[in-house]
Amino acid sequence: MGTVIERGTGVHSRREGDRVLLSCISACGHCRFCREGRFGQCLGGGDWIFGHLIDGVQAEYARVPFVDNSTYPVPEGASDEQVLYLADILPTAYEVGVLAGGVRPGDVVAIVGCGPIGLSALVAASLFSPAAVVAIDSVASRRDLALEFGADRAVSPEEAADTIGELTGGLGADVTIEAVGVPETFELCTELVRPCGHVANVGVHGKPVSLHLESLWIKDVTITTGLVDTSSIPTLLRLISAGRIDPTRFTTHRFGLDHAMDAYDTFARAGETGALKVFMQRTA
Amino acid sequence: MGTVIERGTGVHSRREGDRVLLSCISACGHCRFCREGRFGQCLGGGDWIFGHLIDGVQAEYARVPFVDNSTYPVPEGASDEQVLYLADILPTAYEVGVLAGGVRPGDVVAIVGCGPIGLSALVAASLFSPAAVVAIDSVASRRDLALEFGADRAVSPEEAADTIGELTGGLGADVTIEAVGVPETFELCTELVRPCGHVANVGVHGKPVSLHLESLWIKDVTITTGLVDTSSIPTLLRLISAGRIDPTRFTTHRFGLDHAMDAYDTFARAGETGALKVFMQRTA
Amino acid sequence: MGTVIERGTGVHSRREGDRVLLSCISACGHCRFCREGRFGQCLGGGDWIFGHLIDGVQAEYARVPFVDNSTYPVPEGASDEQVLYLADILPTAYEVGVLAGGVRPGDVVAIVGCGPIGLSALVAASLFSPAAVVAIDSVASRRDLALEFGADRAVSPEEAADTIGELTGGLGADVTIEAVGVPETFELCTELVRPCGHVANVGVHGKPVSLHLESLWIKDVTITTGLVDTSSIPTLLRLISAGRIDPTRFTTHRFGLDHAMDAYDTFARAGETGALKVFMQRTA
Amino acid sequence: MGTVIERGTGVHSRREGDRVLLSCISACGHCRFCREGRFGQCLGGGDWIFGHLIDGVQAEYARVPFVDNSTYPVPEGASDEQVLYLADILPTAYEVGVLAGGVRPGDVVAIVGCGPIGLSALVAASLFSPAAVVAIDSVASRRDLALEFGADRAVSPEEAADTIGELTGGLGADVTIEAVGVPETFELCTELVRPCGHVANVGVHGKPVSLHLESLWIKDVTITTGLVDTSSIPTLLRLISAGRIDPTRFTTHRFGLDHAMDAYDTFARAGETGALKVFMQRTA
Repeated sequence: MGTVIERGTGVHSRREGDRVLLSCISACGHCRFCREGRFGQCLGGGDWIFGHLIDGVQAEYARVPFVDNSTYPVPEGASDEQVLYLADILPTAYEVGVLAGGVRPGDVVAIVGCGPIGLSALVAASLFSPAAVVAIDSVASRRDLALEFGADRAVSPEEAADTIGELTGGLGADVTIEAVGVPETFELCTELVRPCGHVANVGVHGKPVSLHLESLWIKDVTITTGLVDTSSIPTLLRLISAGRIDPTRFTTHRFGLDHAMDAYDTFARAGETGALKVFMQRTA
Repeated sequence: MGTVIERGTGVHSRREGDRVLLSCISACGHCRFCREGRFGQCLGGGDWIFGHLIDGVQAEYARVPFVDNSTYPVPEGASDEQVLYLADILPTAYEVGVLAGGVRPGDVVAIVGCGPIGLSALVAASLFSPAAVVAIDSVASRRDLALEFGADRAVSPEEAADTIGELTGGLGADVTIEAVGVPETFELCTELVRPCGHVANVGVHGKPVSLHLESLWIKDVTITTGLVDTSSIPTLLRLISAGRIDPTRFTTHRFGLDHAMDAYDTFARAGETGALKVFMQRTA
Repeated sequence: MGTVIERGTGVHSRREGDRVLLSCISACGHCRFCREGRFGQCLGGGDWIFGHLIDGVQAEYARVPFVDNSTYPVPEGASDEQVLYLADILPTAYEVGVLAGGVRPGDVVAIVGCGPIGLSALVAASLFSPAAVVAIDSVASRRDLALEFGADRAVSPEEAADTIGELTGGLGADVTIEAVGVPETFELCTELVRPCGHVANVGVHGKPVSLHLESLWIKDVTITTGLVDTSSIPTLLRLISAGRIDPTRFTTHRFGLDHAMDAYDTFARAGETGALKVFMQRTA
Repeated sequence: MGTVIERGTGVHSRREGDRVLLSCISACGHCRFCREGRFGQCLGGGDWIFGHLIDGVQAEYARVPFVDNSTYPVPEGASDEQVLYLADILPTAYEVGVLAGGVRPGDVVAIVGCGPIGLSALVAASLFSPAAVVAIDSVASRRDLALEFGADRAVSPEEAADTIGELTGGLGADVTIEAVGVPETFELCTELVRPCGHVANVGVHGKPVSLHLESLWIKDVTITTGLVDTSSIPTLLRLISAGRIDPTRFTTHRFGLDHAMDAYDTFARAGETGALKVFMQRTA
């Protein structure tokens, strides 16, 4: 975060000194996709810029294109740490996982992958009161973390089919969310989903996967992919202000900016340090 | 078709002598899926029975399970030939292709495969006034047929990307409908679709396909599969009665039942005879 | 509740001795509306029968039409009292109020009327994690009850506009739910709703209301009415089994059937006794 | 229309000399409503400006606020007259009438009022292949016009219930569109609609109407109101270019700008001259 400044043109809605959240997605606001709220697909010069095309904004000043559609006023009372994860990870889990997946009250939701994005999907899914969220990961410590974050069950990939079957009378999960990005986990998602169910892919993939249409063609399955639009930031800000979600639970370590190298080191050795998200803050 | 009879239990809505259309899908009407109109996934004993689990009903009498949810009264004035294709092929194209694909006015729709099911998708898509329907097939005679059935363009798979690109400013098709059932055609559909677009799989597949998530994960694509529910039969009957669609154009050959063997022979040698659909009728 | 019995026809999915919940809505399962899950509008002989067309079923035996679509197996472990309110009131609030109203995470929801149906709407709305639920009633004791049931604010009709305005930057409520059934409360709902918002009418009305189209025509408002379908009973049963909702909190008084007259008397004098719902149970 | 010019700021997507359509709605592109495509409710300074807050743009130069979201490039080959009606009337009928009303293939659609907006709704509804469109007006010459524009039936308000009943087996219209703006026509719409049907109000109302909740509360009816967003202009432009709709049929009279006073006079005496829309064009 920090304070983003766009000076005095008279045409923008942000003013010097405004406290804003900067989205990972910059959006022109008037192309075909922006007009439909699909900011992640902006054709007018916007893109997934911060943290992807250029490095992040750990700087005193940053030039932000399309400031009106790329920054979000932070409500009074919300702390930097509370809103930080709305720049990308939480909207990704909410939009690409939960909304695209169409999670509804009473659903059984399977989340494959319990890293930060999978845990975010878990938090986001709970907003729709599923009957059960099953977290699936091959690493025991991650499954423990999933239970802490509110998963009803946390199992290994090998146990997943049995657990989902037991919870759904053998039918399969209503929604499965892929939060890893490798072929095995995607295929697991398509195995676990019920007829008429939904597979929401959130993971970033580097190679093709096998889609078993020889069994899926007849199952009425919907599969979605997506880059975040961050169109949900205002909604998520309201939920934070209302105390309905608390993203600070993702922070496992906190550092002042004067210890930035320690912070990066802690994050780089996440397996060892147990780091989930590392928070750095300007020191007074 | 023919006349389906269910005698005298007092609990059914069909009566002896009723003229009804028999769906390929039998549905119990009260399981989880039937309650949501997803009859193709019936858990209560229904299934894709006629023409699949058992042979068709070229007989004087047939036992039809769940008669209330498996047969449809034929409106006066509609001929046998007009309603015949509503037993499976036209609802399949309409529900699994066009409705699942979310075709909307002004769309550019690509249909891969111009056999009977692809042509049905073409007719069904036109109900939503797309800006253009591009029919794609490697066989020239099928492309000609597609143009006769109202396609705006008919091209080979090799030409497809250029044609779609030209029609959409390089963006891709809004909806692509797979109507063949082999890996190449499915993959073509995922290549031709635009960001935020929809791939509706209608084809029956016998082996896995490659899903190129390494490029699709970021494209906001929706992929759907499905078995027909025939929930749209009442709608399609209304459209026939209103003269909005005319399924008899699928019939290339007509035979009396006393020439049934000729009919089957004609259909078996479709490549040679040019048969699309062969219609047999009881002779007086 | 009680045990509903349908003997031995071989065509039904319920068996003697099954423990089932009986819906207020009986549905044929195959008419136009039943095929779309709109059981409340059944054209095939179903209707809002129990508790409306005929008196309730405080009896040892009852004839239930269309037993497959009118009764619901009760999951093991769920008590009679837990599932009782799923016969009508909770599905009504969930379907006609919350689902029709399109409540979404982060919404500000105004519920006008804090009797049992308004409180049910409150419980049902919370399944979608609104930012705030504002309960509105002219009676102080009902407002207190609303706060106990989880309302974020409880105000009088006169205070409603200010409270909603304060919570929404003057914009209005995302969703307003009418749970009384008189012109004044309906009109209040249309005043409190924001542009592009939704008014869901749940109340049973006996006379026309004034719809202020002179101001609403330009506001992009959606107004819905509805009779319950009880299509959500399976969902609500899963939520009860999962411990996500607890309908027993609606019970203020419990009686054995041998004190039935006391129970009715307590309910008749609700203003005095504070009765919300009175639960009668067969005594051993 | 005409040529709208915004000079050289470098941040806009329009350039001097561009041929653009100017929407009646100006939209900031970044407020809460613009981000959801609800431009008609813009909170950021946009509004229904042209033809409402200020007079139209029959001028050589005009200042257009938020030019990127208020103007639309006209495709090559589309004439001024073809695109002119996309500035307001046709998007209004399409968005507020047909899309909000949820018209679907096979529907019976009742349109109350056969002035220009009602006829536009008729054209727009046909994009979704209804089984029948019933045009309702008390003036015979308007009913004749509706038949010319493609209505299947054109009847007086008194005949409407019988006609709709005959077409729907007594059930009522799937969608009714109010295109007048007085209480009688709105109430007629709510009488003609079927259970689970939709009333889409397009008319501009000056006083309250009676909403008969004493009968509608149980009918599962949806009522929508709305100001146009003109979000559909790109779609409608594609449909014009594809030859799917031809708005020039709304023009009954054409004048050069040097006969502007005659044009206004002809339009002012529409009852006498039969003017529907009068088209003025710059003379060479």
